[in-house]
Amino acid sequence: MIISGKEVAAALRAELKERMAKLPVQPTLAVLRVGEDPSAAGYLSGVRRACEDVGLALRPVTLPEDSTEEMLFAALRELNEDKSVHGIITMTPLPKHLRHLQDRLFASIAPEKDVDGLTPVSSAATFCGGDAGFRPCTAESCMRLLDYYNIDCTGKRAVVLGRSTVIGKPAAMLLIARNATVTVCHTKTKDIPAVCREADLVIAAVGRQELVRGDWLKPGAVVLDVGTNWDAQAGKLVGDVCFAEAEPICSAISPVPGGVGVLTSAVLLEHVVRAAERAQV
Amino acid sequence: MIISGKEVAAALRAELKERMAKLPVQPTLAVLRVGEDPSAAGYLSGVRRACEDVGLALRPVTLPEDSTEEMLFAALRELNEDKSVHGIITMTPLPKHLRHLQDRLFASIAPEKDVDGLTPVSSAATFCGGDAGFRPCTAESCMRLLDYYNIDCTGKRAVVLGRSTVIGKPAAMLLIARNATVTVCHTKTKDIPAVCREADLVIAAVGRQELVRGDWLKPGAVVLDVGTNWDAQAGKLVGDVCFAEAEPICSAISPVPGGVGVLTSAVLLEHVVRAAERAQV
Repeated sequence: MIISGKEVAAALRAELKERMAKLPVQPTLAVLRVGEDPSAAGYLSGVRRACEDVGLALRPVTLPEDSTEEMLFAALRELNEDKSVHGIITMTPLPKHLRHLQDRLFASIAPEKDVDGLTPVSSAATFCGGDAGFRPCTAESCMRLLDYYNIDCTGKRAVVLGRSTVIGKPAAMLLIARNATVTVCHTKTKDIPAVCREADLVIAAVGRQELVRGDWLKPGAVVLDVGTNWDAQAGKLVGDVCFAEAEPICSAISPVPGGVGVLTSAVLLEHVVRAAERAQV
Repeated sequence: MIISGKEVAAALRAELKERMAKLPVQPTLAVLRVGEDPSAAGYLSGVRRACEDVGLALRPVTLPEDSTEEMLFAALRELNEDKSVHGIITMTPLPKHLRHLQDRLFASIAPEKDVDGLTPVSSAATFCGGDAGFRPCTAESCMRLLDYYNIDCTGKRAVVLGRSTVIGKPAAMLLIARNATVTVCHTKTKDIPAVCREADLVIAAVGRQELVRGDWLKPGAVVLDVGTNWDAQAGKLVGDVCFAEAEPICSAISPVPGGVGVLTSAVLLEHVVRAAERAQV
């Protein structure tokens, strides 16, 4: 079975339109960035298309490249206080002279607008449970894919490849909350293929093109591929899993593109809508 | 080898006396409680002895059993603002009429005084890394035992039995940061003994007397027993691990009592001293 992020994203977008029809305001996502980093511009135009498609408002706030610390935090404060803004994301990397402020910038986002799930309030809830703030979008996308396809995690062995704060560790926490027995692997893990073969569910989030081979997988395993690696030679996006080898072995797998990634941008929008809903109460 | 929490705690207490001699103030731990719950009283007298032994000041603040929400948070606010108080712990369970406020109470402790590691700032750092706030004392005790006995975690398979927010999950995060490949088991895990047998390091934190048997362990494994179960029949504390069966099989094991638990109270004191040191800068 192919786990179609496209299909789940379409269903989520349809749901969002219904929820937005009940709101007295247009949910608005502010994107704060400093300077015109080209990779940030690409991401931003993707977010814009996604917002337009569902009917969210996008408010880009682009500060000059030579902005001071004061200007940066003043701009964020303004967005935090602006009741017409429901969600805030900040684009990184910041210019070099501001880069040391990145963690403090994330931590300064109002938790109720922290749709990327980067503030301590969000991280604490990702870790401890509860629904304060938001879960990081990619990790949440993985859970939404499992839910949509009725894949029950209880008692399953799950292996998460990658221990990042934005994907690997949050995904592990969310899987533990779903009663999976979770193992987190990383660069220092010995014999990753052997550990991987124990898994009924594999989430690959390492950023290495087709690292996970067919013989790393237990027959019948479910595989979620979070990787989005640009294969310059082939001129296309490639996942962390070798799809051609894995597909005949697993019971279900999310492709790249069309899998986790395409849902992630819809989940970001869902967070903005949810923030707007919460703000009405 | 026996991993002696007693020995590590004694070394830590000696270190604390040296660090306190350099401080212009006496580190002070405030303990906030509502009413006179007998189990809390027992814990409090243990903390008092530990403080006296090292030379910390203990400031118990006991509110009447029928205190209101306002009184509770006013008392905490006072402790948060009092510069002569360096660490704050709150005793639970709260009386029934206040119990729904427990999470909010924890979250309202000033993060720099959160020596139990319960605030969102502490939890976020436990999850994401960094040294904001404090790590939960029991999980940190486990790491200190490993450090003291030079037990390197890199590349080792570690199994944490238990997924609580105060022990299991923090211990898992701290082990991942130490490059262990970590699996978290819990009540929904299938065939826990088999999972356990994969482990080079087992941390047992389930609160079930002698659940872990000798045949659950890989020969040569290191075992940290966090359990403190009262065996009424034998009239003594018993761990989550059957020590008699485990001891001949493992390479190292922490006993109960005299293992993790005895170090945990010393780690709490270390947090108070650290809070006082940080407040001097």
